[in-house]
Amino acid sequence: MWEIIILLILSAVAFFITDELIPNLTDLFVKAGLFGIDLCKTSKKKIPEAIGVISGCVFLITSFLFIPVVFGNGLMDTQHFPHNEFAEVLAGLLSICCMLLLGFADDVLDLRWRYKLLLPTVASLPLLVVYYVNFNSTTFVVPIPLRQWLGVSINIGVLYYVYMGMLAVFCTNAINILAGVNGLEVGQSVVIALSIILFDIIELKGDQFKAHTFSLHIMIPYLATTLALLKHNWYPSKVFVGDTFCYVSGMTFAVVAILSHFSKTVLLFFLPQIINFLYSVPQLFHIIPCPRHRLPKYSEETDLLHASRTIIVKKEMTALTKLILRVLTMLHLIDKIEDEESITINNMTLINLFLIKLGPIPEVQLTKKLMMFQGFCTGVAFIIRYPLASYFYDS
Amino acid sequence: MWEIIILLILSAVAFFITDELIPNLTDLFVKAGLFGIDLCKTSKKKIPEAIGVISGCVFLITSFLFIPVVFGNGLMDTQHFPHNEFAEVLAGLLSICCMLLLGFADDVLDLRWRYKLLLPTVASLPLLVVYYVNFNSTTFVVPIPLRQWLGVSINIGVLYYVYMGMLAVFCTNAINILAGVNGLEVGQSVVIALSIILFDIIELKGDQFKAHTFSLHIMIPYLATTLALLKHNWYPSKVFVGDTFCYVSGMTFAVVAILSHFSKTVLLFFLPQIINFLYSVPQLFHIIPCPRHRLPKYSEETDLLHASRTIIVKKEMTALTKLILRVLTMLHLIDKIEDEESITINNMTLINLFLIKLGPIPEVQLTKKLMMFQGFCTGVAFIIRYPLASYFYDS
Repeated sequence: MWEIIILLILSAVAFFITDELIPNLTDLFVKAGLFGIDLCKTSKKKIPEAIGVISGCVFLITSFLFIPVVFGNGLMDTQHFPHNEFAEVLAGLLSICCMLLLGFADDVLDLRWRYKLLLPTVASLPLLVVYYVNFNSTTFVVPIPLRQWLGVSINIGVLYYVYMGMLAVFCTNAINILAGVNGLEVGQSVVIALSIILFDIIELKGDQFKAHTFSLHIMIPYLATTLALLKHNWYPSKVFVGDTFCYVSGMTFAVVAILSHFSKTVLLFFLPQIINFLYSVPQLFHIIPCPRHRLPKYSEETDLLHASRTIIVKKEMTALTKLILRVLTMLHLIDKIEDEESITINNMTLINLFLIKLGPIPEVQLTKKLMMFQGFCTGVAFIIRYPLASYFYDS
Repeated sequence: MWEIIILLILSAVAFFITDELIPNLTDLFVKAGLFGIDLCKTSKKKIPEAIGVISGCVFLITSFLFIPVVFGNGLMDTQHFPHNEFAEVLAGLLSICCMLLLGFADDVLDLRWRYKLLLPTVASLPLLVVYYVNFNSTTFVVPIPLRQWLGVSINIGVLYYVYMGMLAVFCTNAINILAGVNGLEVGQSVVIALSIILFDIIELKGDQFKAHTFSLHIMIPYLATTLALLKHNWYPSKVFVGDTFCYVSGMTFAVVAILSHFSKTVLLFFLPQIINFLYSVPQLFHIIPCPRHRLPKYSEETDLLHASRTIIVKKEMTALTKLILRVLTMLHLIDKIEDEESITINNMTLINLFLIKLGPIPEVQLTKKLMMFQGFCTGVAFIIRYPLASYFYDS
């Protein structure tokens, strides 16, 4: 209990330090050429970019300082020191630190797409190794209705490691592609972090309390530093967070999901990101033309955001493109304008979907609506996790 | 034994990957504004800076991949899995990864001096924590001649942690200040790495073989990636290595020194760096005027390097300045030109000392001479470590 109090104090200090450091260091970022122009504003001033590296560093340092607190007890009794838990913390922090490095390198050097998929895989290596060494449990429990065919559990062996590696890749990129509106990357991460913390608190009384304590030790300092970042990144953004932030956040969630063994629940908290990803698939795989940027369009006259659009030339449509367009139209998931030669539809991101459903709205309203949706999805996740799961799994 | 063979193969692959990646990625660095002009060349073309981040990343990834190889054996017998050794490797890599991140941030953002001292301290935290948890031995063995007063050993308690933290700060900065000539940072690191590897091999038969195996596991991939970097950084440099490289190298040596318990021997291998540091002290503490750069001066006509100089105004000299000048003149350690109002002396770095003793020489000769001196000091270190140490310590 006193550990959590110390953690809360440390995290509060981390919040204030991050809050203080960000405005003090922004000049250095602009001077180093790390800045962007906010496309959804009339002012064209330079906004420092990649500021997620500051909150990320403070988060890491806080976690370092907390290690002797958690493991201080064990030291009194070196025979029973929990070396395996200690290794877990170190591996988790190593993966997060790697992601911070690679994310920052990406922001500075503007790496190619293939690296964006490769880097999280590399950074998750220490995590997979510690999982291999500490658990090496690669068994999935089969839902009750399927057990007559598959048995109570299946061991998927090495595929489990592929699954975990892909989880890290997914988490890091999922946050990165649900972005482009002031405060959205950080806002959604805050909601996800709060969801995980709530879940941990509920489960603290269960038999997995150790795993959930571990999760809290990571999530609380993460939340504190991220809130400080949000303060400066909220509309109108004084700083941009960069890929650095998205990568670190995604990896932090992946670390907690893997080492605390609730990857399925964490995926439920990623529902909006999963929806956004699935909705984006036709464009990501170029079945539907994908412009370089799919950000919403800003109207200077009204100060409102509109859905941005892509043009499909009718002559170039394949059968698959036609099928996808038909299904999406039937489901009312696209806004379509057709003329003789081409079809114009909204770019397929969750942000644009909100804009075609809600009409043009101010940027800050859009962020709030999307965060509320993220919160709503957490509610859905808890319903799936608790009442519904009992139909599929033994409690 | 087969572990070392796999490590050698992995390291060879790491060498070729680094060698391949460096020329492929340099454009990205220049485009990101990470470049410098070589002041000791006639050509003023942009040379990519901070390339140490590439070799550092490959080094880290190689070490990650090697973890399952080392600890694979232990997995067969999970009861006796060496969790404490595993935690050591993770903490070591975490410290190195942190330093890579902070070094790169320093190269990109050009942080202030106080951060340069703070950052290695922060990055060494995981190392100190794992030391606290795994060993917590804070005892120094007293040399035999002093034992009649101090006893066989003294426990210096928390001061031992201060010593280790300062070791990390010293190692990272010592390499950074013995720099400025093509290939010197990397060259000296290669010699130090080779010295440590040689020492490890000699000690492999001793009772500390585990510690020395650990050291080899870190040093071999480090050496491989550093050699690939040297290939591109050697005169005439096609890339600069940046603070990133110096920080990573220093921390790697500190990790090995601390976790393998031969910090005193590692310090012996740092003899040229220690000499350079001590010789620099009067200028670093501004007892003697210190210009912003103390690099040797390049003469375009002759293509030779000359010692650079600083001017001391006689009226402004304190008693301490006079004393230091008198002692250094007596020891023939400075080249002094005096007129009525001022004294001009060489800037007090090892590089300039070599130049006043050897006369103006080409840059590549200077690097070679300094590397030879580093090698000579390794010889001295081995003499101190082996024949001499037996007079002061029980074997």
